[in-house]
Amino acid sequence: MQKEKGSSLSPFNPETILAAHQRIKPYIHRTPVLQSRQLRELSGAEVFIKCENLQKVGAFKMRGAANAVFSLKESERQKGVATHSSGNHAQALALAARLAGVPAYIVMPKTAPKVKVAAVKDYGAEIIFCEPTLQARESTLEAVVARTGATFIHPYNNDQVIAGQATAARELFEQVEGPLDVVLTPVGGGGLLSGTVLAARCFSPATKVWAGEPAGADDAYQSLKAGHLIPHPPAGEAGSAPNTIADGLLTSLGDKTWAIISQGVEQIIPVTEEEIISAMRFLWERMKLVVEPSGAVPLAAMLKEKGVLKGKRVGIILSGGNVDLSKLPF
Amino acid sequence: MQKEKGSSLSPFNPETILAAHQRIKPYIHRTPVLQSRQLRELSGAEVFIKCENLQKVGAFKMRGAANAVFSLKESERQKGVATHSSGNHAQALALAARLAGVPAYIVMPKTAPKVKVAAVKDYGAEIIFCEPTLQARESTLEAVVARTGATFIHPYNNDQVIAGQATAARELFEQVEGPLDVVLTPVGGGGLLSGTVLAARCFSPATKVWAGEPAGADDAYQSLKAGHLIPHPPAGEAGSAPNTIADGLLTSLGDKTWAIISQGVEQIIPVTEEEIISAMRFLWERMKLVVEPSGAVPLAAMLKEKGVLKGKRVGIILSGGNVDLSKLPF
Repeated sequence: MQKEKGSSLSPFNPETILAAHQRIKPYIHRTPVLQSRQLRELSGAEVFIKCENLQKVGAFKMRGAANAVFSLKESERQKGVATHSSGNHAQALALAARLAGVPAYIVMPKTAPKVKVAAVKDYGAEIIFCEPTLQARESTLEAVVARTGATFIHPYNNDQVIAGQATAARELFEQVEGPLDVVLTPVGGGGLLSGTVLAARCFSPATKVWAGEPAGADDAYQSLKAGHLIPHPPAGEAGSAPNTIADGLLTSLGDKTWAIISQGVEQIIPVTEEEIISAMRFLWERMKLVVEPSGAVPLAAMLKEKGVLKGKRVGIILSGGNVDLSKLPF
Repeated sequence: MQKEKGSSLSPFNPETILAAHQRIKPYIHRTPVLQSRQLRELSGAEVFIKCENLQKVGAFKMRGAANAVFSLKESERQKGVATHSSGNHAQALALAARLAGVPAYIVMPKTAPKVKVAAVKDYGAEIIFCEPTLQARESTLEAVVARTGATFIHPYNNDQVIAGQATAARELFEQVEGPLDVVLTPVGGGGLLSGTVLAARCFSPATKVWAGEPAGADDAYQSLKAGHLIPHPPAGEAGSAPNTIADGLLTSLGDKTWAIISQGVEQIIPVTEEEIISAMRFLWERMKLVVEPSGAVPLAAMLKEKGVLKGKRVGIILSGGNVDLSKLPF
């Protein structure tokens, strides 16, 4: 099923990822990799947790956003960047833009939580509110881009963003002594997962790439099973909208991320809400890490497959830690 | 006021700490040191957080316990170790003993939280319950030692324990590029603080050592002000018992820890309950770290003194992360 290595990953190659890493290093944290005796006893595997919850803005999204912003040409920088997001990408793009000294325009639904709006505003971005529909979001963004000339930085379906996210797995491979059998990430839009595929191919080709996905938002699982991209139906269609506590993973794959994921991901493991909350609780109670539900998804998947993973060396990219302390599920 | 360096720190010297570090390295985590842009903006200082909440058993206590256990002579190992504690030292000693293959006897008040009892039992230690008074605790421990011949490992007033705790600051000095102006720890019994004084003298003599202490349990502050040891009055005396949310810091200094602290600590900063909770919330929300109230005390102290610390390079040892998720103060 897999196409020949390299041939179809253009415009990505090891140099692309290394250049991205070099470009963003001054603006990101080299996050620690942690191990846990209790996790070893629980799973039977040697598990290495890459703590992107400890990344700037609390999520790996800073990597892709920084690579996109610092890849702009001089003429583009003056006009700034724009995106639509109410999540971690919005904060990441706002901070990256501030660090680069370029304007940022963030389209957010007017229903976005105040704390997220405040965070983006704190980073100095201009916020443009819209109705909470996909159509309003896209038309508002188009109007912003037309008015400002800003470059649209998609949250995941963007080559620079994907190359930036690839640096998380690249660091993980550097930080772990010896090869990993499997590396696991969560999958929503697929930026982190596709970046991880690229990093594995380039720097650790024997490592298999798996993902965890909420069963309530399993477009990537369904797509990989069918062999073609099956996005979530648009919000509003009865009985079909994705629904999960892992609110960072509600989005569907894009064509760019799907092209990479379809070639390089061995399996996607759907997990239940209970499994997500249980993995999240383990990370908080035992590993002392504040993790958002989406970030706990790959650990939930890993624990679900612990029979197969026994004795293996497993990397997990813990994607983020932005969570409202007053709304914990435990 | 300070005595001559080295002369009065016997039996401690750089070799003692280096030997302790070498001895315990296989059994502890080299915990990460994190920085936060938001903390820099909030404080005006360059702050380095040594994350001992990510240490084994969730606290720096693992260092001292491991050094004490692995320092035992062969004849002593067979008889095991004993202590009285319902806190992090109990878990640390139980785990260190398990790793060394020696028996552990832990005296706990019968009112100890079930989750803490279960954790110690999980590590394979024998638990001996007693009435929740100092007298019962001490007499029960004496009986255990008489019965088993086990070596008593005091939670902090013990040379091996102090040398073990010193390795946290030693690692911090290694991990931070360039010298620190100040290093801050919490202070309860004084094991971590006295170890930090020793490590600073040996490996970073220009670094000043400060501590944060809950105003509701400020025996160290009062002792340093008076120039002699003033322990908390025994529990039960009306109106005088120490009281703070930082339950790891309720204990009084011991003579060994006081001897070092009185010589090497420049100042102790009392902080209010509100300041502790606010610092704890910052660590959870912004730095994504699960920290117990005691662990947030030095950050609270640092923020209280931020006027003086502006522009300085400050290390903070975040002591532990063992907290009941169902009883958060926010």
